[in-house]
This record gives sequence, structure tokens and C-alpha cells, in this order.
Amino acid sequence: MIDLRSDTVTRPSAAMRHAMAQAEVGDDVYREDPTVLKLEETAAEMLGKEAALFVTSGTQGNQIAVLTHARPGDEVILEAESHIFYYEVGAMAALAGVQARTLPGVRGQIPLSQLKKAIRGVNIHYPETKLICLENTHNRAGGAILPLSYMKEVYELAKAHQVPVHLDGARLFNAAVASGVAVCDFAAAVDTVQVCLSKGLGAPIGSILAGPRDWIERARKWRKALGGGMRQAGVIAAPGLLALNTMVERLADDHRRAKRLAEGLAQIPGISIRPEDVETNIVIADIAGLSVGMADFLHRLANEGVLATDFSETTVRFVTHVDVDDVAIEATLRAVSRCVSA
Amino acid sequence: MIDLRSDTVTRPSAAMRHAMAQAEVGDDVYREDPTVLKLEETAAEMLGKEAALFVTSGTQGNQIAVLTHARPGDEVILEAESHIFYYEVGAMAALAGVQARTLPGVRGQIPLSQLKKAIRGVNIHYPETKLICLENTHNRAGGAILPLSYMKEVYELAKAHQVPVHLDGARLFNAAVASGVAVCDFAAAVDTVQVCLSKGLGAPIGSILAGPRDWIERARKWRKALGGGMRQAGVIAAPGLLALNTMVERLADDHRRAKRLAEGLAQIPGISIRPEDVETNIVIADIAGLSVGMADFLHRLANEGVLATDFSETTVRFVTHVDVDDVAIEATLRAVSRCVSA
Amino acid sequence: MIDLRSDTVTRPSAAMRHAMAQAEVGDDVYREDPTVLKLEETAAEMLGKEAALFVTSGTQGNQIAVLTHARPGDEVILEAESHIFYYEVGAMAALAGVQARTLPGVRGQIPLSQLKKAIRGVNIHYPETKLICLENTHNRAGGAILPLSYMKEVYELAKAHQVPVHLDGARLFNAAVASGVAVCDFAAAVDTVQVCLSKGLGAPIGSILAGPRDWIERARKWRKALGGGMRQAGVIAAPGLLALNTMVERLADDHRRAKRLAEGLAQIPGISIRPEDVETNIVIADIAGLSVGMADFLHRLANEGVLATDFSETTVRFVTHVDVDDVAIEATLRAVSRCVSA
Amino acid sequence: MIDLRSDTVTRPSAAMRHAMAQAEVGDDVYREDPTVLKLEETAAEMLGKEAALFVTSGTQGNQIAVLTHARPGDEVILEAESHIFYYEVGAMAALAGVQARTLPGVRGQIPLSQLKKAIRGVNIHYPETKLICLENTHNRAGGAILPLSYMKEVYELAKAHQVPVHLDGARLFNAAVASGVAVCDFAAAVDTVQVCLSKGLGAPIGSILAGPRDWIERARKWRKALGGGMRQAGVIAAPGLLALNTMVERLADDHRRAKRLAEGLAQIPGISIRPEDVETNIVIADIAGLSVGMADFLHRLANEGVLATDFSETTVRFVTHVDVDDVAIEATLRAVSRCVSA
Repeated sequence: MIDLRSDTVTRPSAAMRHAMAQAEVGDDVYREDPTVLKLEETAAEMLGKEAALFVTSGTQGNQIAVLTHARPGDEVILEAESHIFYYEVGAMAALAGVQARTLPGVRGQIPLSQLKKAIRGVNIHYPETKLICLENTHNRAGGAILPLSYMKEVYELAKAHQVPVHLDGARLFNAAVASGVAVCDFAAAVDTVQVCLSKGLGAPIGSILAGPRDWIERARKWRKALGGGMRQAGVIAAPGLLALNTMVERLADDHRRAKRLAEGLAQIPGISIRPEDVETNIVIADIAGLSVGMADFLHRLANEGVLATDFSETTVRFVTHVDVDDVAIEATLRAVSRCVSA
Repeated sequence: MIDLRSDTVTRPSAAMRHAMAQAEVGDDVYREDPTVLKLEETAAEMLGKEAALFVTSGTQGNQIAVLTHARPGDEVILEAESHIFYYEVGAMAALAGVQARTLPGVRGQIPLSQLKKAIRGVNIHYPETKLICLENTHNRAGGAILPLSYMKEVYELAKAHQVPVHLDGARLFNAAVASGVAVCDFAAAVDTVQVCLSKGLGAPIGSILAGPRDWIERARKWRKALGGGMRQAGVIAAPGLLALNTMVERLADDHRRAKRLAEGLAQIPGISIRPEDVETNIVIADIAGLSVGMADFLHRLANEGVLATDFSETTVRFVTHVDVDDVAIEATLRAVSRCVSA
Repeated sequence: MIDLRSDTVTRPSAAMRHAMAQAEVGDDVYREDPTVLKLEETAAEMLGKEAALFVTSGTQGNQIAVLTHARPGDEVILEAESHIFYYEVGAMAALAGVQARTLPGVRGQIPLSQLKKAIRGVNIHYPETKLICLENTHNRAGGAILPLSYMKEVYELAKAHQVPVHLDGARLFNAAVASGVAVCDFAAAVDTVQVCLSKGLGAPIGSILAGPRDWIERARKWRKALGGGMRQAGVIAAPGLLALNTMVERLADDHRRAKRLAEGLAQIPGISIRPEDVETNIVIADIAGLSVGMADFLHRLANEGVLATDFSETTVRFVTHVDVDDVAIEATLRAVSRCVSA
Repeated sequence: MIDLRSDTVTRPSAAMRHAMAQAEVGDDVYREDPTVLKLEETAAEMLGKEAALFVTSGTQGNQIAVLTHARPGDEVILEAESHIFYYEVGAMAALAGVQARTLPGVRGQIPLSQLKKAIRGVNIHYPETKLICLENTHNRAGGAILPLSYMKEVYELAKAHQVPVHLDGARLFNAAVASGVAVCDFAAAVDTVQVCLSKGLGAPIGSILAGPRDWIERARKWRKALGGGMRQAGVIAAPGLLALNTMVERLADDHRRAKRLAEGLAQIPGISIRPEDVETNIVIADIAGLSVGMADFLHRLANEGVLATDFSETTVRFVTHVDVDDVAIEATLRAVSRCVSA
């Protein structure tokens, strides 16, 4: 099977498995797990933040960020199809009690004029704007990169209104590798940031939340409340360290393969896609032009040995990652061709 | 002063004051206040619903509706500038823990195709869609009326997905009088409805929430939790009854005056307004074409004896109501002219 | 009917009805209702606090206090049978997300040593103690008065731990009149206080929440979120002013009658009560010694023209108030005697 | 160092490390991790429940249980010093919005008569009782075992009132081994149960939540909202399986050593402890009789190479576990003696 549903399906490498088995551990609730401490320190340094916190998932990192930045009666501005709003089970309202002020973006970017208008003034009828969230790369915008210049403009606007900015950087390393901007430069344009170890970087479990030291201490308490306080967590922090130290540069291969996949798909009649929109490892193709419906298409594709995801009624998402090589990309294109002509 | 800031500023009539002083009362938490019982019964009948609940404000009625229909982890679809989302202090998230899925509307109407797409399917990442809210007339859309046909289409779509519909009918009587559709016909196109007694109908305090009997019983408990359980509430239910029984038809005067005001404003150079958009008692005029800024404009207007509200950076809202007569409308137009030429 | 179920059943006096009908009003959401402003100013002065807020009920005042003092993840210490915990629909958790740390009291007083132990230290497993609530008089402790000396000791302990204290003073005027301590002296021993106008003081609707000015401004916003923002609220503030200005001293009559009722009940075989425990207007009698069960007893009593409330499986509550005179007390005693001997 | 602070400090065995490195994995959010599936199946079978869910901690398992059983406006009855209430950061209120009704127990057991009285009847002022939580063994009661007969009585009472029962069985295997009652017999006396793999059973991370199949499906969604959805979680499920399959019977050693420790401590002048109260692996000793204060005592003990925890102002907790052998127990007793005589 060629599994292009998500880069979350990557399996730990032999080196990661070895690291797990050898990891030095302690009780991380007591903050005595040396491998977790090392991971948090390494991540904080890479991201240019004072401190970092190891969490079990990107959702957990993002929701802890919302809980730590805001409280019931506050409003959070975010892009209308951002992961935090779209894919996190409504947790920002359910757990943190904050209202989502969603604004439609263009390739993940909320126009600055819209953003400015959405920041609430003082009025007894209004919640207070207490957080702006960005997502880079932006999943539902097809892995689009938010340019550093855009992020800086947002940050300046936010600071002028005393509103902090959180970055859902689940795939920030993809943005960095593809754009040549360092992750710490992206992270410098926000107050807090979450990055995933378990997507393109291939670790089995976990994400990092980074920010100011005292903020991270408060976040640590919310992690405990969510049940994210783990004991000998060094066993999963060890592959996380390898992810940060050895898996970043290779994301360029995923991007090259995604581009190749897009170019190939663009040649297939009835499939609509602009290869120039594919900036990282996510490929969104529109199949509205095919005679076959979504469920059938995905079913046929699976029968051909390729897994992908429906992303809307007519769009399919393919995500490249470490377990998909050049051969698999070509095989995928042949499989799609067969499905279409069938 | 000619106060056009809102129809909430209306003062109780002599008849209402007399009714208060004479009202038969009891302890409404024990459900022994005959005047409240009468008001709830009357309102339920007018709205064609099994039962009704007297609440202290439109916000309270709407928020109780959200609390009773949905729970944390659920999503509520509503128009992006609807009152429940825009003007209720983020309470739907803060109190009910529900996520707002906002969609921009055209004159208050979310396009049906957008609405349909926003109803969530089954997916572990998704909150469940548990409520759709409409607003009729729609305040930020300038008192626009949602046509009964539109409401019926929404209801049909909602029922097909087992999603209830709540109507913020703070100004439903305005919609009814202006369109010639009975309030009970509008109400028949939703599961639950809130109508205000304290806006155009002129009562000093209070709103009505109506719906199925068992649903209202659960709503009553949420009212208690919000502190809306009152004791000898008959003293304010009495003017509420008069509002329902004697103040509805006269809304036509407010609408006629709003139209006249819009037509007059349209003649003033630098003020932009389409009188044909004024369907009820709300008049939104754009002053971007004036040389004077918003704060200055409102200040000058106040000095001329007219109060209005800023509705956005360049738009002003005027609301007609029982305490504003024909003479006041003409005086308002002269005052605006003087401000503009000053 | 002699209605001793609660002092909430009191009906507005002729003077109050007159005041309603004559009240000068405005829109209180704009803070332009002169009668509400006058009531809030008067109440703040009587309570010795910087500012006050008119709310629709004691529950609303208490819950706004919790929402303004604390946030999700905080803990609130209060007596195990206090009204805020016992009778407010779980709102402190449902709305404010705070955990109740309840401690059993003696006549409403949590022993200081227990209170001290319950204040949380710093620990990643612990919520933070952010509020202590007291209740004076204490309803479920039979209208018991918390002595000023006790309140001062609690306040000192609380201040030493930087924990604010809120007083549910629904019946604080009863405590003041019965003990000879001024309400402002009680209020000086807490940070914020809620007093009811609609219980012994006889107003139809409403309570007062008082505290520091900036705290009250934040409370005002929570009142809006709960739907407690009213428009021409002067119509109910007017009788509230009369309640404060004319109804306080007469509470002594209610207390005298409660004592007489208790003494009379103590003479009836099978009824157990200590008249010396009756300090204010609440009388709790135990009927475990009767051959008749609770439901039957209350039913028989109602047939005799007397209403009371079951307070536990074997205890009945009688509350004296302005609509119950000496004659009614004697009639009540005769009615109870007949029920018992029947 | 002899670390007796908690059984959470246990380190994974060589076999567990090997299992991690060899684990077959998949993406558990897609429910394709065979090792997680195997663990959940095995755990469900051992506990006699339809289904199970792997979670990252005991706190997460318990809080998901509360979120799935109850909703804002509900009340949960639990022992006053139970872990869910005492040590979980107030999450049951902060996340689930439910009110804690705490009742003091005797060795972890709430007297049935008290429990019965605390179940709420129907009243507009009351939250609804929607869950009873038990804890077995009970941590703050010194590892006391709740007898199966007691649990059955609670369950019967609860069922009579249609209230579900959840068991915090963080140390249920200790209860089972010490009492000779099978875990599935304990689990049969509740609706849902959480057991920890990372305490006495020695796994590095994780707990199990078990119950009816459809309930577990809803719990799975709450796990996602809390960020507990993991990807290649098989790497930590593998040692969890070993914990269940190979580490249960050896808990008897921990219990024997705890008893020996208690007996030894009882001989030391100034230390107060009843060895007959030590039923499992937790030893609580009172040092009020020593001339040394708590902080000093723990500091001296650490200097002697022994770690323990303060459990209250005068009590110390020692917990035995797989990394503490007979020699360590004797060394601990000598260390304590030296601290005391110093």
C-alpha cells in the first residue's frame, strides 16, 4: 500500500526504535526525565524561545496554547479553515470557553485589513480579542506557506493591540525547508508556537509547545489538567530528539515528490490542479471533472494500492512523507490514471 | 433629544405604568405569578408554540436557547454578524462551550449551499453540528427581513440533518408587520424562537423564549442557573402583555418613518444610503463621503439634539421607535444637514 | 393562606407599586436609568463599598461574583450547605468552571482550622484557591448569624493567603438587625457582597452586588453575558430603593415572630426544635417524632391554610416575613397542633 | 537513592524496552495500530467490559470518564479526598463544568446513608446527580481497599437512582492482588473503570479506560479533544501489554514490603502508624510526635538516600514498587531511625 492519506502515518525508523529502547528516563511529572528535558531544551533552542513543553499531539499543544492565552469571555481570531478551528473537535469552545472569530483567508492568509477590523474595541456587548492564531504551513490551503513578511505584519498589528499571536506550526519545518527561512525566524514573529514531531519528521508520538518561560509553566499545568502529564516519557522523547536532529533536511524530498505528483496529476484528464500551488508536501486535486464520484474514486484507488483522503466534496488530498519514495509517486500516478480511465 | 440610537430606549407608556402598579403577582420561581403565567400563555399562543418562558433580555433568551439545544463539543451555525455571535459577549462559548461556525450572509441570509456545506459529517476530528440560528429582522444587515420562503428552506435542510433551528426574533414583530406574514408563520419555520418585548414593542424589560413544552422546562432550569428566576415578576410581565396586545400594529409607523428618514438622508451630499434597503425600523447610512470623521459627526449631531450610533468605521445606525414621531424625523434630517454643511 | 415557605413570597407594598408607576427611567444598558443609578449609589453607600450593581436575583449576584473572582482551574471554598453550592443549579461549575471545595460548618461557620487546611499550596496537581464564600445569615443553618468576629478572622486568614472573600448576604439585613451590627461593618469584612431586595425587604425583584469599582465594572460585563442587562430597569429599582430605605428596621418583627413560632412549636409533642437556635426569621423544626411522614404533614398543613417547605427528610422550614403578622403566627401554631393530633 | 515517593517512578524493564523497539505500529487515530488494538482488547477482556481505550494518564482517563458521563449543570458525587477531586487540577469543573459533591469517607468509603442523602431529587434549584465516582485502592486513605461488598451496595443504590458509577482504579490491580478478588469482579460493580499501567505495573506511560462499547466511542472523541489521540502509539502500548500480562502477580511483593516497612516504622519512637491499616503498597506515617518538622525530616531522609512525600502537615507517604526490594526496605528503616535520632 502507498499511504498518502497523511504524513501522520510515518513509522519510526530503526534509529528511533533503538533510541527508545536505550532512552534514559525518569518521572516527567516530577520533571526528572533527562530525555524529555533534553528534548524540551533542544526544541526551545531551535525555535528561539525561552522554554518548551513536550505534549502528546498537535491538538494538545494548540489547545493548551488557547487555554493559557485566553479565558471564557474572550475571542480568538483565526483563519476559517485553520486546524485549530476545523479539526480539533470544537475544543477551543468546549474546554477553553473562547469564541472563535473566523475569517476566510487566501492561501491561509487572512487579509490584514480584515484582521484589523476583527479586533474588538471596548464595548459592553463584546468579548475581548485575546489571541490571534496562524497556521504555517496551512493544511486546508494545501500546504501553503505563510511568508515571513506576512507573519511579521500580523505580529506588528497584534502587538499594537496588545494581542498575543500563537502559531500552529504542525508543519512549520516544511515551511522552513521549502522557503529557506529558519524555523526560529518564523517563531520570532509569534509569541508561542506548536510544532509536530509525528508528522513529516517521523516520530511516533508528540509535539512541542514553545514560548516564554513563565507562560510555559502555566501551560504545563493545563497539560496536567488535560491528562498530558506522562511518567517515563523519555521513551517517546528520544525518537522526538532524533526527529528534530536528523529528519528536517529530508523534507525537501517530500516537497519535490509532491510537486512531481501534482505535475503528473495535472496531465490526467478530468483532474484539476495547479502544480505551482504545491509549495510543500500536500497536494490537493479536484476531481469534479471526472465521471466518478468521491467515494468510488477513493475506493478504486485503494484497490489499486493507493490511499488518499477526501478533503471536500470534490477534492482529494495526497500527502508525501518519509515512507513514500520516487517509485511510489510514479506508481500513484499510474494508479490514478487507471482509476480515471476505468 | 431625539434618541435614534436604538429602539431599546423606548419608555413605558402611561398604560404600562398603570398595569405595573395594578398587576396581580405571586412568586414566579414557584410558578405562582398569574401575570407571568398569562404573559407566557399569550406569547406561546401568538407564536404558535406549546410553551413560552419570560426572560429578562434578548441575550438571556438566546443564550438559554443555545444552552438548552447544545453542549460543549457541539457546533452552532450562524450568520457572521448575527447578534448572538457579535453582541453577546462571547457567551455562547463562555457559558455553553459551543463553537460558533459563522458564515457571511447576504442581507442576513446565509446562502443555502454554504449552509449545507457547513453541516458537519461524522469524523473524529469534528464537533457535531447541533444548532442553526437565524435572526429576523437582522440587525447588522440593517433590519433586513428574512423571507418566510428562505426560512422554510433552511428548516427543511436542517430537519434533513436532524439539526434544530433557533430564531433570534428580537425584532420579529417588525418583520411580521412589514412583510404581512404572521409571527406564528415565521415561528413555524423554526424549533424555538426569542422575541423582545423591550424594543419596538416598548415594554421596559423582558423577552420571550418559546418552543416545545419539555424543551421550555429544560430552558427554565438554565434560566435559574443564569439568575433569571425572578419573584413577583408580574410587575414587569404586565407591561409585557400590553406590549404584545397593543403595540404591534403601530410598528408600521416606525417603518414608514425609517423609510422617510432614509429618503431624506439620500438627498444629503456625502451620505450614501439606498432607501430601498430599509425594510423595517433600522437605517444604516454611510458617511465615508463626508469630510468629517465618525466621532466628530456623532458629536455634532448630539449637539444638534439627535443621538445615533456608529455601526462600523464609516456607517451610522438610526433606529425609529414609538418615542420618535414624524416631526422628530424631519428635525433629524435638518440636524444632519447642518452637521454636514458645518 | 399563611405562606411561610419563604420570605421570597412577599408582595410589593402599595408604596412600592406607586414608586414603580412614577419611576424616572432610562436605558440602563447605556447606564442612563436615573433610578437604577440612585439605587446602586444608595446600596454602595449602605454597604460601604465603592460601587454596586443591580442584578435580577441573588443567584445572579452570587454567580457573577464567582465568575468575576475566579476562572476555570480555580477552586472556591464554601460551606457544604451554602446556597451558592446547594441551591444554584451547579452554576459555579457549569458557568464559571470552578471547583467547589465544600467544608461542613457549625451553624454556617467553617472551623478556621479546617478552612486554613483547605487553602491549596503550590502543586502541579492542585487547582488554585481563588475565593472563599460565606453566607450570612445562613439559610440551611436555620438563619444562623455569622458573628462579625468570625467573619473578621476568616478575612484575615484569607488576606494572608491573598484569597478574596465574597459574602452571600441574601439575608444580611436580617443578620444586621438581629445582631445590632451595621451591614457595612459586616461588608467591611469581605471584598464583595450580595444582598437581596426581594426577600425580607419585600421588593418584587432584584439583588445588589457590591465591591471595588473596577471589580464591579468587570461584573457588569458578566451580567450582560448572563442576560441580566435590562433596559428601563428603574421600574423595579424604584421599589428596591424603598426596600432599602423603609423596610430594614421592621425585620425585627419577623425575628420576634419566628422566635414565638419556635417556642410554640417546641410545646407540640413530637416536634423537635431548640427555640434558642432561632436567631432571625427562619425556623427549622424536626418532625421525625411524629407518626406522620413529611409529604402527609405538609399536605395536612396546607389543608389547614398554612404553607411550609420540607428542608430535609425530617425537617420543615417556616420563614416569617412582612406578609405574616402575629395573628398568623398563632393561627399557624393551632394548625400544626391540629395536624399532629389528627 | 531509594525512591518511595510514588509507584509512578518505576522504570520500564528490559523486556518492556525490547517490546517497544519491536512493536508493530500503525496510526492509532485511524485505529490502525495493531499493538494498541491488542492492548485495548486484552484490557477490556481482563476487566470484563465491552471495550477499552488507551489513554496517556490516569488523570486523562478519569476526566474523559467525567466528560462522557456528565455535562455542565450536573453534579458528581465523590469522596472528599479522592484523586479525581483532590489531585486533578480542578479539571472536572474546568473542562466538564460539573459540580463536585464531596463527602468525607472512612478508609475511602462514603457511608451509604450519606451517599443516599446526597443524590439530588427533582428541584429547579438543584443540579442533577449524574455520576458517582469510587477509588480503589484509595490513595489518600493510605491505599485502603474498597471491599467488593461495599462497591456492590453502592452500585445497587446508584442503579436504583439511574446514576452511573465510575471507578478510578489507578491501583485496582493492587486491590485485586491483596484481596484475592478478580479485577473483573470489581469492574462488574461499576459502569466504567480506569486502570493505570504506569504505576505498580511498571509501564512507562499510559492508562486504560473501559466500559460499554458505545460509551467508549464517545470517550474516544473526548480523548481527541484533550489531545490524547496519538499516532504510532503501539510503541507505548507494547510495554503496557507486558504490564498487564506479566506484572500483576508481583504486586504481592510490594504489599509485603509495605507491611514490613509499616511494622518497622511503628517501632521507631515518635512515629505513629497502625501497620494493620496498610493493606496494599502505600504507607502513611504520622511524624507529629517527632521534634523535627516535615521539611526538615524529608530533607534529612533525602540526605540518607531515601525519598518520600509529605501527604499532609504531619504525615509522610511511602509507596513500594518494583524498583524497591527487601534490602531497600531495611535500608529505609535504618535511614528513618537515623533521621529521628539525629
